[in-house]
Amino acid sequence: MSASKYIGMSGTLTKTVTEADIVNFAGVSGDFNPLHLDAEYGKSTRFGSRIAHGMLSASYISAVIAMRMPWGYGGVYLGQELKFVKPVLIGDTVKAVCTVESVREDKNIATISTIVTNQRGEEVITGKAVVLVPKE
Amino acid sequence: MSASKYIGMSGTLTKTVTEADIVNFAGVSGDFNPLHLDAEYGKSTRFGSRIAHGMLSASYISAVIAMRMPWGYGGVYLGQELKFVKPVLIGDTVKAVCTVESVREDKNIATISTIVTNQRGEEVITGKAVVLVPKE
Amino acid sequence: MSASKYIGMSGTLTKTVTEADIVNFAGVSGDFNPLHLDAEYGKSTRFGSRIAHGMLSASYISAVIAMRMPWGYGGVYLGQELKFVKPVLIGDTVKAVCTVESVREDKNIATISTIVTNQRGEEVITGKAVVLVPKE
Amino acid sequence: MSASKYIGMSGTLTKTVTEADIVNFAGVSGDFNPLHLDAEYGKSTRFGSRIAHGMLSASYISAVIAMRMPWGYGGVYLGQELKFVKPVLIGDTVKAVCTVESVREDKNIATISTIVTNQRGEEVITGKAVVLVPKE
Repeated sequence: MSASKYIGMSGTLTKTVTEADIVNFAGVSGDFNPLHLDAEYGKSTRFGSRIAHGMLSASYISAVIAMRMPWGYGGVYLGQELKFVKPVLIGDTVKAVCTVESVREDKNIATISTIVTNQRGEEVITGKAVVLVPKE
Repeated sequence: MSASKYIGMSGTLTKTVTEADIVNFAGVSGDFNPLHLDAEYGKSTRFGSRIAHGMLSASYISAVIAMRMPWGYGGVYLGQELKFVKPVLIGDTVKAVCTVESVREDKNIATISTIVTNQRGEEVITGKAVVLVPKE
Repeated sequence: MSASKYIGMSGTLTKTVTEADIVNFAGVSGDFNPLHLDAEYGKSTRFGSRIAHGMLSASYISAVIAMRMPWGYGGVYLGQELKFVKPVLIGDTVKAVCTVESVREDKNIATISTIVTNQRGEEVITGKAVVLVPKE
Repeated sequence: MSASKYIGMSGTLTKTVTEADIVNFAGVSGDFNPLHLDAEYGKSTRFGSRIAHGMLSASYISAVIAMRMPWGYGGVYLGQELKFVKPVLIGDTVKAVCTVESVREDKNIATISTIVTNQRGEEVITGKAVVLVPKE
């Protein structure tokens, strides 16, 4: 049996994005852009506040891919496309949903839609992952 | 003047990927896959050790895009494509180099090659970013 | 050419000081003084709340000295004087500005004023750094 | 009674400076200078390896001042002078010793020598702190 049986299945992670998450992501990535870390600067932007790093929300996608897909832990993350559609503000609750869209049967490689939405159901990131699915 | 003058220019970040970075990235992303955090499991894999999260290395790309491009801080990160080509092991030193490849002049949108290499010059991530470059 | 050309030039970092920063600085320094970490104790002080570690704000000075001066990365940090003038409260946004004041030409050593202000423009730290400026 | 009774008394903190400490101090300060974080670059320097941030060692002084002086917790940290004399390498064990040198009796302000040594007894930081000592 191939990985085709996973088509349509999803993995999910939900998370409120706190100020501490942004501080810690800045610390791990080195991205101290004032857009993320300076509340005064944030107020002056069109967003009206600091926003989360786009890659912080993307990191939740990678957590789903690595741990919460129907095949469990053994996938190999080959690639990721990301579109940063809307900003995530401090206090927003995001939901990363990764859904298997198609499978190349000869190689057991899945294409997975990777969508992050906020608490209003608005898409904040769209994109696709490519994963080598473990053989059973 | 358009952003075309930036074509060929780069931003760079170098970083040794330590065990602490992997622990911290796991904490911020929620990705506790044993491939990253379980040394015993890591030994049993074809890599022979734990490997870093792909998105950790990608986060260095985002730090360069956000802070180290020739236009400074004001870019808007619209999208990112990533291919995870080789694993990064604990102790590897990675270099993220982001180079402006082309600019859509009507919209001031740059396409940027985003390459992460290791201390042997091997590519570990390849890809492209799309960024709205700030007007001067 | 000597480093005298840098006289009057500055490097800057801005940062909102969050509860998470204080927690993280406590963890790295070992300074668990209740003035910084005990909200109940903080309420009982003349500040009316916890305050940030003075050395946390000083660490932003060191980040500017290490990375954001006109000569880039290669300086050698020889010394620092700090006066802790006013407390920084959680949520304050600080700005560290380091400005080259004078240069000893025979040794290429710069004296740099190091001022941290808050969002009201009040000085919270004043002082001076001494840095060996890299030769070009 | 004044704070003069504390003259000659000390507070101490000892700590092995690990790679994780340096990673975490970089994250909290924003100082991602390759001298601290890039092992390959570190090898190319006259130190032969990455070195710890000077302000990381200074933060141990501040922890002693804030928590380990004979008067306990209530001091007010007014100022600090630091000379960065020698580098601290990963794995070095440092000892911060803060000794009351003199007291201005009218204001209850102590001048404190602040010395950090390494495991070979070499001074890595010298300097002085000025602290308003709490009344009993």
